[in-house]
Amino acid sequence: MQVMRATVIHGPHDVRLETVPDPVIQRPTDAVVRVVAACVCGSDLWSYRGVRPTTEPGRIGHEFVGVVEEVGADVRSVRPGQFVIAPFSIADNTCVHCRHGVHTSCEQLAWWGSPDHDGVPSDAGQGEYVRVPLADGTLVATPEQPSSELLPHVLSLSDVMGTGHHAARAAQVGPGSTVVVVGDGAVGLCAVIAARRLGAERVVAMSRHADRQALAQRFGATDVVAERGPDGVARVRDLLDGIGADCVLECVGTKESMQQALDSARPGGRVGFVGVPAGGPELPVQQMFSTNVSVAGGVAPVRGYIPELLEDVWSGAIQPGLVFDLVLPLAEVAEAYAAMDERRAIKSMLLP
Amino acid sequence: MQVMRATVIHGPHDVRLETVPDPVIQRPTDAVVRVVAACVCGSDLWSYRGVRPTTEPGRIGHEFVGVVEEVGADVRSVRPGQFVIAPFSIADNTCVHCRHGVHTSCEQLAWWGSPDHDGVPSDAGQGEYVRVPLADGTLVATPEQPSSELLPHVLSLSDVMGTGHHAARAAQVGPGSTVVVVGDGAVGLCAVIAARRLGAERVVAMSRHADRQALAQRFGATDVVAERGPDGVARVRDLLDGIGADCVLECVGTKESMQQALDSARPGGRVGFVGVPAGGPELPVQQMFSTNVSVAGGVAPVRGYIPELLEDVWSGAIQPGLVFDLVLPLAEVAEAYAAMDERRAIKSMLLP
Repeated sequence: MQVMRATVIHGPHDVRLETVPDPVIQRPTDAVVRVVAACVCGSDLWSYRGVRPTTEPGRIGHEFVGVVEEVGADVRSVRPGQFVIAPFSIADNTCVHCRHGVHTSCEQLAWWGSPDHDGVPSDAGQGEYVRVPLADGTLVATPEQPSSELLPHVLSLSDVMGTGHHAARAAQVGPGSTVVVVGDGAVGLCAVIAARRLGAERVVAMSRHADRQALAQRFGATDVVAERGPDGVARVRDLLDGIGADCVLECVGTKESMQQALDSARPGGRVGFVGVPAGGPELPVQQMFSTNVSVAGGVAPVRGYIPELLEDVWSGAIQPGLVFDLVLPLAEVAEAYAAMDERRAIKSMLLP
Repeated sequence: MQVMRATVIHGPHDVRLETVPDPVIQRPTDAVVRVVAACVCGSDLWSYRGVRPTTEPGRIGHEFVGVVEEVGADVRSVRPGQFVIAPFSIADNTCVHCRHGVHTSCEQLAWWGSPDHDGVPSDAGQGEYVRVPLADGTLVATPEQPSSELLPHVLSLSDVMGTGHHAARAAQVGPGSTVVVVGDGAVGLCAVIAARRLGAERVVAMSRHADRQALAQRFGATDVVAERGPDGVARVRDLLDGIGADCVLECVGTKESMQQALDSARPGGRVGFVGVPAGGPELPVQQMFSTNVSVAGGVAPVRGYIPELLEDVWSGAIQPGLVFDLVLPLAEVAEAYAAMDERRAIKSMLLP
């Protein structure tokens, strides 16, 4: 291994590729992974924009795939040379919460770039190498090395595809469902894929951008609604039996988007939400009570979804990696952020 | 028919049995029902206590069973002489929302004691007779006249048993579920029945009253927790694998009870709520996001549940009518309210 480089955020609009210490196995359950592809998440932009303040320079990035270089003595399920997918959170995959499928509440939960329960800092994903804690629980190996065509689709399983799938599962999308997707970012677009994959008959993508509308339709959206607010709700009702959707997938996280979601569901409908709540808008319980519209979801336990989604990615049945419309070398990570921040890109992929 | 009497609310702590006009068939879809038993609902106490202001004297009561006296020309599914159950809301049972099982969002929804869409006033349940609009959609006939032993159980299907069942269904209680019931009123107690009926393995009743604790246990609660707030949550976790419940049934409607419910669910758990939100406490979306605890439920579409629940009532498999611990003649309706208001009774049954 060489002296490695990784992305460090210093403050608003200031991410830099810097030389950092080489990762080493610190615990027998660790692995070291050479990153083959990483990406920038919409939630990384929160720090980038200063909405979430950066108090001291820190490693950033929580979506990556790569090749196992080295494993600790207790690692059993992955071995050097294997290609692996890392979900956006670290989990043991054995505790009671993981067994319930809620890996994001794992008893040993840790986040890339943050200290774990013992205060040991974790590496982050936008770098050349990553020390992976709880490697057996966290990593999922692919059948073999993916081709360069497959690579973006596989990478999407680290977050956005699993997160869109979580929204669809939380909203109980099933065969014949009518679905509205609020949000045309990478997660919303993947939610369109997920809804169709689970059998939805109608999928209405709410989007005002021609390129994203086109991608939503390529992913299986049957309808596009550009309007927002009450006009958007009226259009959705027009399209869906005059009553609204069985399932609404909220993939933004603002007060407005949640209200859009609640208003777009039919009585008894279900909102599945995965948009990180921005500023903690609370849910209008009286509206939920009188309409019987439910709200389920949260931070997506993507680890548990990787195996089933990987099957469909590997077979070519789904192509979520099409959300990456900008591919840059890791050295240009600053531009990868800027392009997403300025909405010149839906999602940036980084190749170390 | 004689000149009939019905309950009229005049203001806080002022309900009176008064002579009112005899009900007559006004539309061909109406029926007239002679009330055999009615009851007082916890939500009636809102008006009784002045929380919901009474602007002018009005008929009250939305839970009753009785015998069909007369039907309009278009009524097909019930006939004079049949014993019928009236759910707490009026519905056509044919519109798109009813077909989705959300009878409380029926396109022709109306409430007992309130004007319907055309401004025609509806009768209410705490009286001797009731004009029933949309009789085919609203009423469910029993196989035959219930015995006096069966009567309270059958009456409970007009609201509390169906409402408790809705909480359990909304929380997706199933075989093996661990369940917490927040609220030991009639609905909470019925929710215990519902949870066990749907296969719950553990049902923790949160109750501080010895008589209600005993009834909860008779209904199948496996555990009772008297503590509230953080102490209550700690006790629940102790009892349920250290993590909390798969399903929590919120049967109160206050900010505190909803918080108790959210805190009592395990990560990924499900809150089913049927407590009428008092004062509109909003839901903490950030907590729901980070824990993946969902919230479903609302005003219960009991009409749709009556047939399946009636089967179990009729066979004696469930005995929800045990929640009636005070039986009074209709003439003593004022005492029926006072006893519930002062918590001397869980629920009052009225016999005209």
